[in-house]
Amino acid sequence: MSIHTPARPALDVDVVNGVAHKVRDLALAEAGRHQIRLAEHEMPGLMALREEFGPHQPLAGQRIAGSLHMTVQTAVLIETLRALGADVRWASCNIFSTQDEAAAAVVVGTTGTVERPEGTPVFAWKGETLEEYWWATQQIFDFGVDAAGEPVGPTMILDDGGDATLLVHKGVEFEAAGSVPADAEGDSAEWRVVLEVLRNSLASDPQRWTRMARSIQGVTEETTTGVHRLYELHRDGKLLFPAINVNDSVTKSKFDNKYGIRHSLPDGLNRATDVLMGGKTVFVCGYGDVGKGSADALRGQGARVIVSEIDPINALQAAMDGYQVARLEDVIGDIDILVTATGNENVVTLDHLLALKHLAIVANVGHFDNEIDMAGLEALPGAERIEIKPQVHEWRLPNGRSILVLSEGRLMNLGNATGHPSFVMSASFTNQVLAQLELATKRAEYPIGVYVLPKLLDEKVARLHLDALGVKLTELSPRQAQYIGVDPAGPYKVEHYRY
Amino acid sequence: MSIHTPARPALDVDVVNGVAHKVRDLALAEAGRHQIRLAEHEMPGLMALREEFGPHQPLAGQRIAGSLHMTVQTAVLIETLRALGADVRWASCNIFSTQDEAAAAVVVGTTGTVERPEGTPVFAWKGETLEEYWWATQQIFDFGVDAAGEPVGPTMILDDGGDATLLVHKGVEFEAAGSVPADAEGDSAEWRVVLEVLRNSLASDPQRWTRMARSIQGVTEETTTGVHRLYELHRDGKLLFPAINVNDSVTKSKFDNKYGIRHSLPDGLNRATDVLMGGKTVFVCGYGDVGKGSADALRGQGARVIVSEIDPINALQAAMDGYQVARLEDVIGDIDILVTATGNENVVTLDHLLALKHLAIVANVGHFDNEIDMAGLEALPGAERIEIKPQVHEWRLPNGRSILVLSEGRLMNLGNATGHPSFVMSASFTNQVLAQLELATKRAEYPIGVYVLPKLLDEKVARLHLDALGVKLTELSPRQAQYIGVDPAGPYKVEHYRY
Amino acid sequence: MSIHTPARPALDVDVVNGVAHKVRDLALAEAGRHQIRLAEHEMPGLMALREEFGPHQPLAGQRIAGSLHMTVQTAVLIETLRALGADVRWASCNIFSTQDEAAAAVVVGTTGTVERPEGTPVFAWKGETLEEYWWATQQIFDFGVDAAGEPVGPTMILDDGGDATLLVHKGVEFEAAGSVPADAEGDSAEWRVVLEVLRNSLASDPQRWTRMARSIQGVTEETTTGVHRLYELHRDGKLLFPAINVNDSVTKSKFDNKYGIRHSLPDGLNRATDVLMGGKTVFVCGYGDVGKGSADALRGQGARVIVSEIDPINALQAAMDGYQVARLEDVIGDIDILVTATGNENVVTLDHLLALKHLAIVANVGHFDNEIDMAGLEALPGAERIEIKPQVHEWRLPNGRSILVLSEGRLMNLGNATGHPSFVMSASFTNQVLAQLELATKRAEYPIGVYVLPKLLDEKVARLHLDALGVKLTELSPRQAQYIGVDPAGPYKVEHYRY
Amino acid sequence: MSIHTPARPALDVDVVNGVAHKVRDLALAEAGRHQIRLAEHEMPGLMALREEFGPHQPLAGQRIAGSLHMTVQTAVLIETLRALGADVRWASCNIFSTQDEAAAAVVVGTTGTVERPEGTPVFAWKGETLEEYWWATQQIFDFGVDAAGEPVGPTMILDDGGDATLLVHKGVEFEAAGSVPADAEGDSAEWRVVLEVLRNSLASDPQRWTRMARSIQGVTEETTTGVHRLYELHRDGKLLFPAINVNDSVTKSKFDNKYGIRHSLPDGLNRATDVLMGGKTVFVCGYGDVGKGSADALRGQGARVIVSEIDPINALQAAMDGYQVARLEDVIGDIDILVTATGNENVVTLDHLLALKHLAIVANVGHFDNEIDMAGLEALPGAERIEIKPQVHEWRLPNGRSILVLSEGRLMNLGNATGHPSFVMSASFTNQVLAQLELATKRAEYPIGVYVLPKLLDEKVARLHLDALGVKLTELSPRQAQYIGVDPAGPYKVEHYRY
Repeated sequence: MSIHTPARPALDVDVVNGVAHKVRDLALAEAGRHQIRLAEHEMPGLMALREEFGPHQPLAGQRIAGSLHMTVQTAVLIETLRALGADVRWASCNIFSTQDEAAAAVVVGTTGTVERPEGTPVFAWKGETLEEYWWATQQIFDFGVDAAGEPVGPTMILDDGGDATLLVHKGVEFEAAGSVPADAEGDSAEWRVVLEVLRNSLASDPQRWTRMARSIQGVTEETTTGVHRLYELHRDGKLLFPAINVNDSVTKSKFDNKYGIRHSLPDGLNRATDVLMGGKTVFVCGYGDVGKGSADALRGQGARVIVSEIDPINALQAAMDGYQVARLEDVIGDIDILVTATGNENVVTLDHLLALKHLAIVANVGHFDNEIDMAGLEALPGAERIEIKPQVHEWRLPNGRSILVLSEGRLMNLGNATGHPSFVMSASFTNQVLAQLELATKRAEYPIGVYVLPKLLDEKVARLHLDALGVKLTELSPRQAQYIGVDPAGPYKVEHYRY
Repeated sequence: MSIHTPARPALDVDVVNGVAHKVRDLALAEAGRHQIRLAEHEMPGLMALREEFGPHQPLAGQRIAGSLHMTVQTAVLIETLRALGADVRWASCNIFSTQDEAAAAVVVGTTGTVERPEGTPVFAWKGETLEEYWWATQQIFDFGVDAAGEPVGPTMILDDGGDATLLVHKGVEFEAAGSVPADAEGDSAEWRVVLEVLRNSLASDPQRWTRMARSIQGVTEETTTGVHRLYELHRDGKLLFPAINVNDSVTKSKFDNKYGIRHSLPDGLNRATDVLMGGKTVFVCGYGDVGKGSADALRGQGARVIVSEIDPINALQAAMDGYQVARLEDVIGDIDILVTATGNENVVTLDHLLALKHLAIVANVGHFDNEIDMAGLEALPGAERIEIKPQVHEWRLPNGRSILVLSEGRLMNLGNATGHPSFVMSASFTNQVLAQLELATKRAEYPIGVYVLPKLLDEKVARLHLDALGVKLTELSPRQAQYIGVDPAGPYKVEHYRY
Repeated sequence: MSIHTPARPALDVDVVNGVAHKVRDLALAEAGRHQIRLAEHEMPGLMALREEFGPHQPLAGQRIAGSLHMTVQTAVLIETLRALGADVRWASCNIFSTQDEAAAAVVVGTTGTVERPEGTPVFAWKGETLEEYWWATQQIFDFGVDAAGEPVGPTMILDDGGDATLLVHKGVEFEAAGSVPADAEGDSAEWRVVLEVLRNSLASDPQRWTRMARSIQGVTEETTTGVHRLYELHRDGKLLFPAINVNDSVTKSKFDNKYGIRHSLPDGLNRATDVLMGGKTVFVCGYGDVGKGSADALRGQGARVIVSEIDPINALQAAMDGYQVARLEDVIGDIDILVTATGNENVVTLDHLLALKHLAIVANVGHFDNEIDMAGLEALPGAERIEIKPQVHEWRLPNGRSILVLSEGRLMNLGNATGHPSFVMSASFTNQVLAQLELATKRAEYPIGVYVLPKLLDEKVARLHLDALGVKLTELSPRQAQYIGVDPAGPYKVEHYRY
Repeated sequence: MSIHTPARPALDVDVVNGVAHKVRDLALAEAGRHQIRLAEHEMPGLMALREEFGPHQPLAGQRIAGSLHMTVQTAVLIETLRALGADVRWASCNIFSTQDEAAAAVVVGTTGTVERPEGTPVFAWKGETLEEYWWATQQIFDFGVDAAGEPVGPTMILDDGGDATLLVHKGVEFEAAGSVPADAEGDSAEWRVVLEVLRNSLASDPQRWTRMARSIQGVTEETTTGVHRLYELHRDGKLLFPAINVNDSVTKSKFDNKYGIRHSLPDGLNRATDVLMGGKTVFVCGYGDVGKGSADALRGQGARVIVSEIDPINALQAAMDGYQVARLEDVIGDIDILVTATGNENVVTLDHLLALKHLAIVANVGHFDNEIDMAGLEALPGAERIEIKPQVHEWRLPNGRSILVLSEGRLMNLGNATGHPSFVMSASFTNQVLAQLELATKRAEYPIGVYVLPKLLDEKVARLHLDALGVKLTELSPRQAQYIGVDPAGPYKVEHYRY
């Protein structure tokens, strides 16, 4: 087995045992175990699936390669997949987002020890290098060898952001071409790492990804970005296996994106800066679901919120919700806290950063770190970066002012806080598990393409979370159901209903 | 020409002139004219369409039969359709919703007089009987005779609730059958009136509706209920012409339904009862767009709001927005104000009404008057109805308590207030006009079926309302547009985006 | 008896019977009676006082001269005072605020007729002239003659704004001086009327007010303005009898001012203009209790609210509550709706009015009509005033723009709506009645001075309103009460506690 | 010098140098220095005082003994007092609330080192024992010896909770009595420590506190609890020096208590549990300023909030703000999160704790740990306490359920988060400094008694915080000022105004 992490040679030992390095600390695993237990209480959807499907083992025989922030909540997801019969390997989808105690607990398992872990292989730790990150992503595809000694890959991908899916698709593409392109000028540092990974792979096993792709029955993906990539792949005829777009389940996009951010944006601001939001002028770029949750949270803390939008419909929504809607450059000098929530690039330019007030806070909850022009800031002559604490940096600008940049422009709700809370993730992950079940058990109904979950399953996800909140659902009488032309058990709405 | 209003014989004279009776009062028309002028200021979308399309007269040659609440805002709509070249006739779609001054102003026109009206024929007044209502609805289909003396019908229907569309479809159905069914037990009073209208029509002109339907190019419909009927007609292969579902434009459903109700529900409560909402316990049945707007308005006035839902997704949204979600019967004794916003029938039963507190207020903003079991209440032995003022009735119940019922269980935001405000109606009506333009100018692109407006037009509606609110839209750079894979001019979102 | 209303000669007849003119319409009285019955349900504080004190008739022998908006709610107050034994005469304290049906019902009484009214003398109608207003105010002091034929005056004043108190104090002052000053340049139209009234009084009875003042045991006053006058009188040694400042009961100032306006400001805007508040930019001058209620209501309707303040503490509160705090002139061009809530004069100057957007709405909920420079507007050459409907005027300005002025710059929640709702008025009026009881039954404890009600009574007012809202109060255990050093029955807070 | 900390012998060395032990870590001090610099930006009031008063050194010659949470914000306060000329010694007023990096930075000073600290003596670290806490509190009174070798005490106390003041008063009392009482049954553990401290003091120096009290010019106190003690002392004639009640400055009580908690309650919940507040049912005991801020914050996060109150006025406010007002026992089974904000004792009883749902969260932001019956819980047979992480404990109850108790029932916004944010503390601390200035420079105006700051100073505190928030204050014209009878420069309100 070849492992490509020159910067982390000591890793080899643990990998031989099929587990990640952090497991060495049993106390860490025990702390994680406590947190997982509390999280289970907040993840009623996943626990209900364990109860409903556990006895039937519908995922038996499935090998799931998971690439998703390795948090306490993900631990509950992983253990749910296991409870339904799957074999699972896991990496994080972000270099900063792993909670080491969660990773440790998953690896050790409930009754394991550091020496004899009994859990699930996890390749993730907080603060990976890019090289480590992509090394870890490769590990989730390696399910050992079969009786004949042939390498065994996953039957399923569970993805967040699409990195695992990307690796397979690019691997297949380069294997078909017989070579991996050379680094080109303008390639990002990360892309260069990916190319290097695939170059090494091609050198050591020229059919690795092609062989792997054949065994993969499908992927379930939960981010806007990852889903966007999937639709593009499908549009271009390059999608290799069916995909379920979990992101656009109502119980994902209107919950995780909105209510999750409502929770985790102020949490991240607090942990990073302890700054009072009340009375401050906060600018939120974008009024999609993430922007809506952001604005709501900040208003709830007494901030004056100004919003920008490029879509006139969303802009009108923001106005109707009582927010000033302005262009960033028009009010830049008034802003105390600047939040990006767009999913686009270069939304906050270097010019914007230079026009901010002294010690204005800059935070991204939208997308990649290119939402803010971090590259421009890093290249700015005379700019100085001072670490106040991890993931909080003061940038002293040549104009004599400073700004505070959170999580180096990456998702601050993950970098400065603990991401979305368990309850929200329960909704998202219940969608993930239901999507895995669809692909695993109804393979014939899903030819290659990108699908959203049937509305009835979306409603089921919601339904599984009501009891925990004390919500009592009203039931349609048969006559009422007939009156509005639906089944009393649902689905209740036309497909295009917007919630 | 035969007119079927035995109860209103004096009407004939006016109808010969093609105008409604209320016009006799010029002062009323002048008051309406003032209000229309103020409303124009609040309806920037319609005014922008006049400016953009007026010179090109794209609706020239179109004859539009309109059935929609005859309010001040509708007056601006009618005059916009006229400004784009259309010939228009109008009736209200609700017996209580006409604002007489608006009707009078539209009929008289800007320079007309009572004797020589120069406006648009309108057949509507506040407080019609059912017979008058359906008489008036018939009038909008009668565009006189052509050069050959043949009756001329509309080329287009602009509908709200689907009554005009119903009349055509039932007329055609019964003309094909050669007879109108006899009244059946259980038929509502209104349905009996419709049957009588069609019986008379069949007797006097057995091909009237069949002939009319052939000349109709399409219908644009803006209510959930009306749209639901259209989809059913189409599903059953009975739809006679293409239909545009204006209701499901984002700028209609997420604005009119939500923000319109947020405005007009408390307005109706105030005008009807002057009762303090602050501190009261209010129960809102349904958390769709109308329910969301209701709950938001009531919370904004300091009420404690409890919500009921049958759809687990909407129920979860209500919980996440901080509302208690309960079944009506479980908290019935705590409720001061009961609001229905479901679009279903019999949501508030007679048992519920009997369990309410003394002088609890019952109001419907959802749908027909069967949302509350008004029929059951009216049939209740020992119940007594006392008119406090028009559209506000105290019902003394046999249990010794009273309840206050607004607008006799019909839409109270229309019956007790003035409906949605101009700005909201501007968005809805700009959709209506754009839909009429689509059907009038791109007939070939719309074979028989039910369509929503293209997203780009939906965005256009929003765009036309931004300046008036001081909203400054941010523009995508070409590079940003490419990054997210859209045209810089829009549309900006995938079809299933939920806003 | 001389009556000084040349414009209303027919009044004499009714006055001989001791009742106001409007009573001629029994239907009006019956409509008022219905509304009073519904209002009683919303005024639990007053109804509880009737129950508690009615049997003891603590106000027997008291003659109360009331000057307070003659609304349905005031009818419940008047009848509560009567139920406690008082003899009562009433006038409104505002020329526009009378609800004629309420006045009629009070005059007729529950079993009376127009010919034989059995109620309370009321001298008020909607739309009085200034002459009529001050004529009416005089009538409340005239309780006929005693057995000896001597004129009998009130023992108590119940005041709102201080006009009744002013008349007595000025009457006494001028009687002492022996003459009433001549009109001076700069005297307001109203002041000239007051002087004329007192001149006539002095001529016909030179000791009228001096004699009257001796019989008055005290006054209870509920407005900021009226209270301010009382403190000034007392500071200057001119106060003639003790006064209870009802305005500064917590259950008045923090309820009526804040929650009352939260209700009645949007109500007035709706009835006057039907304009959508959502998405609009609204400027609120002043962030006292009235301003707080205003801003809260408007935000609750989705408006963007900007606030101005002169007091840095209130300004900081506004900022902490998430509002932009700006000077009016700095944002004047962005404002759709301008609301004054300050209690000061000339807060909106003519320059401000001229800088507003076309058809901006101007509304006062603070104080007198001088809060907005209406005098300046009226004197502006080229300005034209067009009545859209009663209390709604478009002012066409020389700059080509128009503005909409509500209630001619007077309190629009009274002029365009029905004032505060019953529940809020119940709290205020329960304070009034308790204050009347204090002065009537504990005269010795109140030497001349201005007093607030004891905190225990303030708490009692609140307590009497809890059941109606379903509020369950927690009770202090004796040990807990001792721990915080209070009586378990209250009062619970130190005097300077701010709520 | 005698030091009474048997449990911490190694402390002696540092104390000889007059500094606390944590200083040994220079990196810690540097981290604290960074945070202090950022905090200064958020504490404009203190920075403005340095600018205004620094040149005049009005506190020169004053020796201030400070007992207040040793946080980053307090560091800015301490350095402000120093900048105004004072000599300062500091301890924390809570065993958990010290931020060690702040303490270290204050001790080291800007240019000092661990070996040669140049800052202010601080005796505080996170996680003190009760013995350590009271030892540290003693140290702040020890300003060395004078030229004559006599011990020198403080001239001023700056207190938070009153522990420093208590020590002096009890010391004086026992010195007068000549003995310290023996421990009594029912004495709390803490009280026993205090008695032991004073016993040792009396033994070693029988006039220590009596002498000290003579040199103390006054105390400024900022908590409800501490102020309550002061009023009681004064009422009983036992107060030894004048006291300024900083707690009841508007800019303290209505800001710190309300807006501070609005910030720090959800922050503490997040850091402790990461639990989603949205959709949860939260019960807030008490609707004073702290309760108001709590309820507002939780609603802002989408929780359903239920409130309890013992004061009918506050209860009515809660209802008017839209909250259900209930007794804890009536809804105990629905609660997910239970927050105490009362300032009373035993508000949450053991019975309440036992009736809570599994894994319900219990948090105190009100007062001492006796607000929740922690003693009862600790004594409950069969209850088991499991540390999830520091300050977060799962209590397994004999009924099979668990509850999560934060900060062991102490103030969780301090124990689980970082307390109030800098901006809020700037308002509170600016009051503290102004109060210290009053006592230091206008001693004659403050005979022994308890005072609030003059309103003009209260307004000044607000004024100093406006610029930082971009607030533009409107100025009264002289005529307007006269109209409302105030000075254009303030104060603007009557004393009893409630804000």
